[in-house]
Amino acid sequence: MSLIFINESMKAREFLMTIRNTKVLAVYTIASTKVSTIPGISIAGKSPAHILYTPAYDVEYLVYGVRGCSELPITPEGIPTPALITRACLKTSGFPYIIVNAGSFIEPKVPHMVLPSRCVGERIDESAALPPGTARRLFSEAYQLAQHIRKLADTFIIGESMPGGTTTSLSIMTALGYNAWDKVSSASPDNPHELKKQVVKKALKRLAEKYPKECDVFTVVDEVGDPLHISLAGLTLGLIENGAQVILAGGTQMCAVLAIMKKLKGQKLTNMIIGTTRWIVNDITSDIRGLVLEIAPEVPLVAIDLDFSKTPFEGLRYYERGFVKEGVGAGGTAIAVHTILGLSADEILNEIIREYNEVMAYVQVR
Amino acid sequence: MSLIFINESMKAREFLMTIRNTKVLAVYTIASTKVSTIPGISIAGKSPAHILYTPAYDVEYLVYGVRGCSELPITPEGIPTPALITRACLKTSGFPYIIVNAGSFIEPKVPHMVLPSRCVGERIDESAALPPGTARRLFSEAYQLAQHIRKLADTFIIGESMPGGTTTSLSIMTALGYNAWDKVSSASPDNPHELKKQVVKKALKRLAEKYPKECDVFTVVDEVGDPLHISLAGLTLGLIENGAQVILAGGTQMCAVLAIMKKLKGQKLTNMIIGTTRWIVNDITSDIRGLVLEIAPEVPLVAIDLDFSKTPFEGLRYYERGFVKEGVGAGGTAIAVHTILGLSADEILNEIIREYNEVMAYVQVR
Repeated sequence: MSLIFINESMKAREFLMTIRNTKVLAVYTIASTKVSTIPGISIAGKSPAHILYTPAYDVEYLVYGVRGCSELPITPEGIPTPALITRACLKTSGFPYIIVNAGSFIEPKVPHMVLPSRCVGERIDESAALPPGTARRLFSEAYQLAQHIRKLADTFIIGESMPGGTTTSLSIMTALGYNAWDKVSSASPDNPHELKKQVVKKALKRLAEKYPKECDVFTVVDEVGDPLHISLAGLTLGLIENGAQVILAGGTQMCAVLAIMKKLKGQKLTNMIIGTTRWIVNDITSDIRGLVLEIAPEVPLVAIDLDFSKTPFEGLRYYERGFVKEGVGAGGTAIAVHTILGLSADEILNEIIREYNEVMAYVQVR
Repeated sequence: MSLIFINESMKAREFLMTIRNTKVLAVYTIASTKVSTIPGISIAGKSPAHILYTPAYDVEYLVYGVRGCSELPITPEGIPTPALITRACLKTSGFPYIIVNAGSFIEPKVPHMVLPSRCVGERIDESAALPPGTARRLFSEAYQLAQHIRKLADTFIIGESMPGGTTTSLSIMTALGYNAWDKVSSASPDNPHELKKQVVKKALKRLAEKYPKECDVFTVVDEVGDPLHISLAGLTLGLIENGAQVILAGGTQMCAVLAIMKKLKGQKLTNMIIGTTRWIVNDITSDIRGLVLEIAPEVPLVAIDLDFSKTPFEGLRYYERGFVKEGVGAGGTAIAVHTILGLSADEILNEIIREYNEVMAYVQVR
């Protein structure tokens, strides 16, 4: 009972059977959007000034642990990054992984892959997110990268870290014609839907004025998106179109990736699932199930049944109160560990507690 | 008779037997040193102004081919980059590969791995090559990267592109106590030994004045080296110490990598060979055999027996007159293709001619 199946559960089980004896490569992509600096949009940093640094610090922590990262990303309440879950899973499994920089505000101090056209996304309520043509280039670079790494494994976990991403994913999905209002999640239990709506409406108004007729996916992303989701779409399409299996490891943001892929491909998406956490699928302030069913109902949605309510650490118990929920591929990576190594959610929980102990021994978080 | 065995031929044959059924990953590392801009030092560019761009253009060509690269790197005589050989080998074999940037003057327009401490090497005749501490950081970042990619394959081809590298490798080997004078090769048939000697003597004088007593390997590289060779040493040690097999794919420059590794490790190097070209081992202006026997006689030296004398293209026939000779892992990659796919040197030659035809159809080189 370590997994929760939301839709297409037969297909999900088949997918998980298929990947059981395959070689895995995890890919964690980071980027920044200045949307995250709009007061009230994101709590994924100790302070608003820290938020642009979170993606880089997340992957430094992922690679080097708490002793080697510039700073452990925490919320203003001191609740630690979900990369903690991911790191525990990677340590246990030994899965190989790479970091991809699609536009991080600072360069992480770890060896990592870069997309040549990477750049920080601008505030979509004020201006175009990306310089013209960037989305197309990021997509094609990510697709190219996928074709290369495809040869290195059969199953890929695709995770991300980009604060502000639920707002830009709302913007992308809405601009592409989906009804995503009030459905994206938040790292806060107080999901700031109204604020997100204000930001996105300004962005969409700008888009409509600039392009009175419908415009293509790349233009949508250049105008009202961000560097991350288009890169994830390029990676994922480059993998599944070359016969790999993909776990899109994330929450409602991944629905923007589905939306981009559906528009580009124009047909059903196969060989993939969305893998997330129980906190996302149970979140009453968002609706990942509704988004998947609207955008790509053929894609199974699976959650790892992690429960932090009985852990000895307040920082982890906060997750049960709707904080953080997901990020840095936490849910999907845990699903892969469960599926491929056979660890139950409770055994994974023990690994997370072990990792949290190490963090606590080094730095005082809640 | 596709291979030429120079030393330790039994061990070399065993090594090649071992890798026959393994998974391969090729790693091409690029960097720049301003030593290459000293007039007369390097011909690895259309003009001195182009030389700093060569590594980036090399890997763009490697990935995208002649239609996709900013410019095809050629010598002033119009003789094309050895990346042509490498690309032909990669197209035939489908070997997965990654590009690592250890300090390229410009960023290549391909998805690639970066080492966070990468930087362009300064002119060693004038100043320290790298900011203090850089060599140690590059080494550790490359070692870290190696530990990650180790999980993705069992056999690794390690190639490089950095014009000016034979001069800095001469400097590194000499500073580490080896007699390398007149032994490093050149992309020109007129190997400018005297000029290299002048540059290196200035560098060593500066080093001796600054550090009158012996100093460690990292200080040597910071002062009189470059960003490339220390990164290659980190990569290679990180791989062989974790049980992988390594083909160090390059000419006399790779002896500087051996020198660094021997100093750091203090014992015999195993699980590796140097793989190069016939043009390098037959070169009368340099002495790779002498260097290997002096620095690490336990490491087998193997060359691919490619002969361009009967090819229909003047640009390739120039190789037979001592131009270019090696680079971008050409020799070692061809050795891997021969060993793992069973292609003879003549069959590989046909693939090179096929690739050259494509290049010729697009851009007029000799």
